Amino acid sequence: MENPKEILIKMFQAAISAAQSELCVPPFLPPIPEGRLVVIGAGKASAAMAKAVEDNWNGDLSGLVVTRYGYEVPCRRIEIVQAAHPVPDIAGMNAARRILETVSNLTEKDTVLCLISGGGSVLLPLPSEGLSLEDKQVVSRSLLKSGASISEMNCVRRHLSAIKGGRLASACYPAKVITLLISDVPGDDPADIASGPTVADVTTCADALEILKKYGINVSRYIIEMLEEGKTESVKPDDPRIKGVVTRLIATPQMALENAAKVAESYGIRAHILSDRIEGEALDVGMVLSAIAMQTARHAQPFIPPCVLLSGGETTVTVRGDGRGGRNVEFLLSLGIALDGHPGIHAVAGDTDGVDGMEEIAGAYLSPDSIKQAWKMGINPKYSLANNDGHGFFQALGHSIVTGPTLTNVNDFRAILVTEG
Amino acid sequence: MENPKEILIKMFQAAISAAQSELCVPPFLPPIPEGRLVVIGAGKASAAMAKAVEDNWNGDLSGLVVTRYGYEVPCRRIEIVQAAHPVPDIAGMNAARRILETVSNLTEKDTVLCLISGGGSVLLPLPSEGLSLEDKQVVSRSLLKSGASISEMNCVRRHLSAIKGGRLASACYPAKVITLLISDVPGDDPADIASGPTVADVTTCADALEILKKYGINVSRYIIEMLEEGKTESVKPDDPRIKGVVTRLIATPQMALENAAKVAESYGIRAHILSDRIEGEALDVGMVLSAIAMQTARHAQPFIPPCVLLSGGETTVTVRGDGRGGRNVEFLLSLGIALDGHPGIHAVAGDTDGVDGMEEIAGAYLSPDSIKQAWKMGINPKYSLANNDGHGFFQALGHSIVTGPTLTNVNDFRAILVTEG
Repeated sequence: MENPKEILIKMFQAAISAAQSELCVPPFLPPIPEGRLVVIGAGKASAAMAKAVEDNWNGDLSGLVVTRYGYEVPCRRIEIVQAAHPVPDIAGMNAARRILETVSNLTEKDTVLCLISGGGSVLLPLPSEGLSLEDKQVVSRSLLKSGASISEMNCVRRHLSAIKGGRLASACYPAKVITLLISDVPGDDPADIASGPTVADVTTCADALEILKKYGINVSRYIIEMLEEGKTESVKPDDPRIKGVVTRLIATPQMALENAAKVAESYGIRAHILSDRIEGEALDVGMVLSAIAMQTARHAQPFIPPCVLLSGGETTVTVRGDGRGGRNVEFLLSLGIALDGHPGIHAVAGDTDGVDGMEEIAGAYLSPDSIKQAWKMGINPKYSLANNDGHGFFQALGHSIVTGPTLTNVNDFRAILVTEG
Repeated sequence: MENPKEILIKMFQAAISAAQSELCVPPFLPPIPEGRLVVIGAGKASAAMAKAVEDNWNGDLSGLVVTRYGYEVPCRRIEIVQAAHPVPDIAGMNAARRILETVSNLTEKDTVLCLISGGGSVLLPLPSEGLSLEDKQVVSRSLLKSGASISEMNCVRRHLSAIKGGRLASACYPAKVITLLISDVPGDDPADIASGPTVADVTTCADALEILKKYGINVSRYIIEMLEEGKTESVKPDDPRIKGVVTRLIATPQMALENAAKVAESYGIRAHILSDRIEGEALDVGMVLSAIAMQTARHAQPFIPPCVLLSGGETTVTVRGDGRGGRNVEFLLSLGIALDGHPGIHAVAGDTDGVDGMEEIAGAYLSPDSIKQAWKMGINPKYSLANNDGHGFFQALGHSIVTGPTLTNVNDFRAILVTEG
């Protein structure tokens, strides 16, 4: 194979491109409405998405979106508000209120374009009347510890919110609502992305109560009564205020992987998408994928080389050392140690948001020689791994990949190229 | 699909059958020699292998094999000695000495049949002259902590041994030597199975010294001198005493998986062997394989349902709770939680030695309803997992699989059946 590093980096870039607002937003812009176009939104990509709307829109527009501190992109006509993530703050709550105001008093001639991406739930916090941000967070934290599933947690959250669970869409009524989504959640369920502010909810206050009971979550008498009386019922699918909402997934981990697969195939390399939603400890994910790559190289099972094994999702790192971190480089280092210089296996791993961990390094490249090279430089790879120092390790080898912040996020990208059997 | 549980359990049984001594030993028995047949061996399966030789041998024979306490099988003509595992003891050392005596003074008309299986290295300990069992173990433990690879550790071990690294084979000379191996090591390298007592060694005393230096291992002056003077050089491939040795892998994780694949295919289900050597934390392996199974079910990628995903290897469990343990049931419970009742996905996981963890339960079966059923019985699956209580969980559901000790070991067996897209 000519240049495995170059081919793998091109695949990573293709994955990111598939999720860039300037490319994925324009094809989904609505026709110019008779009335106004109001742009709202929340998420880490929302400012970049707003910019893409402005740049490709020939009519009038106005609006307000909220993004994370540091993720703003200057816009001329849409106001960009910044708020805190991952812990919500008053700035986010004020933005949520203002967005609800912005969409009230619209007519059926108007269109609301709602731009939602990862982080949107935290950036758009608006507890039900009578609850504080803190009250809601206490319930969320208890649920997280209880063993409740994500869908159960979201059911409860939607019934303690004044904007999630379809309420934002119903506030827009009778305007037409079009929601564009960039997904960073496993399974890409629109109801889960930013807790679905414009998505109808099939669950009820009674379901939320049931879940709180099932896990023995201690909540205030006030919350119990609120749910028992059905005061915070979310917007149901048959509600006329939500029936006309159009929801479009414009970028997902799967689409990013498929775009990378096209690059591989342009080089005559078969691409196999293992999964768009791998979770688990980065170190162990590295061990499992190394085993599949070696099986492929040695037995031509379950895939026939030359081929590339693609996967997405979001791994985790249990911090054990004081290295520079990064879950994708932790995965890659573990993969390298497990492969132990196996010939013909190269890999790239990176975060599609351009920031793997705390540093502005997106990811790294692993060659069959990486482990040997590190030893020559006096670096013990297993020590680097035990110290969570993936960035230190790959930077020393000159194998870091820097893209800069991409202002989008479809989670992790991993590509393992097996060149020969 | 008719009965996923039944089909999956048949696959597991087929994997075990492929490694049972009474089935895998007989095809590899040598012709009756002009002189004597001497049977020696070490490992957890060695007594069962010896019995299979006796039952299928029409000539004279004698011999001595060493197995783990509790793994003996009554033999009429081959003496069975028991020793300690996983920490070697004097009984093992005495057995090693007696085995070397047994094969000395043979002629070229004699044949030595050497039966090796997992655990053989520990059960056949014989340090180089001047070293104690303790001396050798101290070095092994330091290497284990240092970040040395398995092959590096084995290189050092072979040069501190009086029986490994081909020495047992050279002691048999001029008799013909046939070694039958049941593998439980990733990659199935005969030099790694029980540290290769009958396998020529390409590494040298100088390599062993280099490795000790590379990792800064503190060893006695005596060991350094011994290695510097090349006193404990292992037997090299061009040594005439080892050139005629015949080595046969008679059972491996890969063979076991392929036998299971045949069962799947007899039901018209495509089988995909992901890997014969998956390692890593059982919980995380469950999460990764769940992601691949869901991708298969939802996207018909990377495999097209109906199909079964097979894998072997040996996972680990970091003990966090005081449940009944078992790495295969830990994997299976984690898989079930991650799948969260996904329709059409069933699985089996078990240890091919019939003992998953500390109990005589081989493994278990997971259905799409398992998680829901557990909740109905008042069992919180995530609590069971946090408490390492896989056996408790699946036994409560009536989904344990009991085979009894199989007296063989080709490690873990996992099968995930995806019935529909």
